Amino acid sequence: MELNDTIKTQLAHRSIRAFKDEPLTQEQIDTLVEVARWTPSSTGQQRSSLIRVTDPNLKKEISKVSTQAYVGTTPELWIFVIDLYRNEQIAKAKGADTTYANDADKFIQGFTDAILAAQNVEVAAESMGLGTVFIGSILNDPQKMVELLHLPKLTFPILGILIGKPDQEPQLKPRIPNELRVFENGYKILDNYLDEFADYDAEMSTYYDMRDLNKRVDCFTDQVVTRIAGVPARQRVMSVLKAQGFNFD
Amino acid sequence: MELNDTIKTQLAHRSIRAFKDEPLTQEQIDTLVEVARWTPSSTGQQRSSLIRVTDPNLKKEISKVSTQAYVGTTPELWIFVIDLYRNEQIAKAKGADTTYANDADKFIQGFTDAILAAQNVEVAAESMGLGTVFIGSILNDPQKMVELLHLPKLTFPILGILIGKPDQEPQLKPRIPNELRVFENGYKILDNYLDEFADYDAEMSTYYDMRDLNKRVDCFTDQVVTRIAGVPARQRVMSVLKAQGFNFD
Repeated sequence: MELNDTIKTQLAHRSIRAFKDEPLTQEQIDTLVEVARWTPSSTGQQRSSLIRVTDPNLKKEISKVSTQAYVGTTPELWIFVIDLYRNEQIAKAKGADTTYANDADKFIQGFTDAILAAQNVEVAAESMGLGTVFIGSILNDPQKMVELLHLPKLTFPILGILIGKPDQEPQLKPRIPNELRVFENGYKILDNYLDEFADYDAEMSTYYDMRDLNKRVDCFTDQVVTRIAGVPARQRVMSVLKAQGFNFD
Repeated sequence: MELNDTIKTQLAHRSIRAFKDEPLTQEQIDTLVEVARWTPSSTGQQRSSLIRVTDPNLKKEISKVSTQAYVGTTPELWIFVIDLYRNEQIAKAKGADTTYANDADKFIQGFTDAILAAQNVEVAAESMGLGTVFIGSILNDPQKMVELLHLPKLTFPILGILIGKPDQEPQLKPRIPNELRVFENGYKILDNYLDEFADYDAEMSTYYDMRDLNKRVDCFTDQVVTRIAGVPARQRVMSVLKAQGFNFD
């Protein structure tokens, strides 16, 4: 089977962290916004919003939250927002009971809507030859993000994306083999996780991450150990979600 | 600007709910699995898994959970799973402290990973001329889904997708205008939600949903009122997430 251009793009995904100092055209921006708009959403309720950050000072502040300098200098920085506020306002204006406007079911749907849109934009941008990287590190300080973006109750900044012309050509980052994470008809618990991951560990150990060209990355299972620790800053995420009015009871 | 094929596909998205009785080829399936694999993930931790449901009886059971008959008859039914279990097992095998393996930060990252993969698969399938629909209604009974798919602690079935050859050609479903959900540098609270949504309401009222060809759909703001009510079955989602070991403190 000849792979089409869409799938070729998807299979060649690399996160880009160095961008040329060239803005996107207005047409490119408008097209990417339209792609976000036409993304599927849970029961058509479109419970997400998008904030495009163009103010250099605001970019710099968000860059401080994420601790990634390139967040402040990349042409486009977009924040995908879980948004239960808009529909709550509509329902209130119609005199409806909004007791459940903030329940976990709707949080999950809004979260899903926001992330579906984020990936749709990523694919579209890469299909245009642009580079992207998702910025989960805005969650290092969600309360600061809420303040910086003037987010009302029942909204939450769940993921950012940077978009620009790539100024690097990183290697493909090796992925877990499918047999270890794609299952048929039910979840498969592995007999020995370290044995099963040995080949992938070896593959990761020979991969060089562009973030630090001077050293190989850890093998995957060592990365897992590093990443499984609690990140103190990130332990605030639930309290900010609750302060934003989401109900997880 | 000439739109490329990827973006044309994305802007033409319609959910498909009637499929031809023709299986996908093994090559199509393998390609879609690869697309899921190469999706970006939070800090490269790949905290999601994919379960392909091929057993007709299992499909029928899941169809009962979702209350959509076509779930039981569509060629491909895939379930995207938040998976903090795999990396917890790896960390345990390496003797690491796994106190924070189940924290909300990692739940958010696993949720994000799973949904990014879901949208990537959706775009790829549509680029092949296949039709798709997301199945959020597996969350009508998450505990049943956990049992049906033998999901261990720290995993959760967050979203399903159906894939097959389309046997219908629905209209594009109108979307909220961009000016009401795409903002620059900060969230914009609208002055009067019903006034601002009047045009979109009118547009939705003339749209016919293929799920019920005999009647127009409600206007959007009426749908919001219907959908904002609490769905009793869905109120169980947090208790099942907690029973699966996720920690939202």
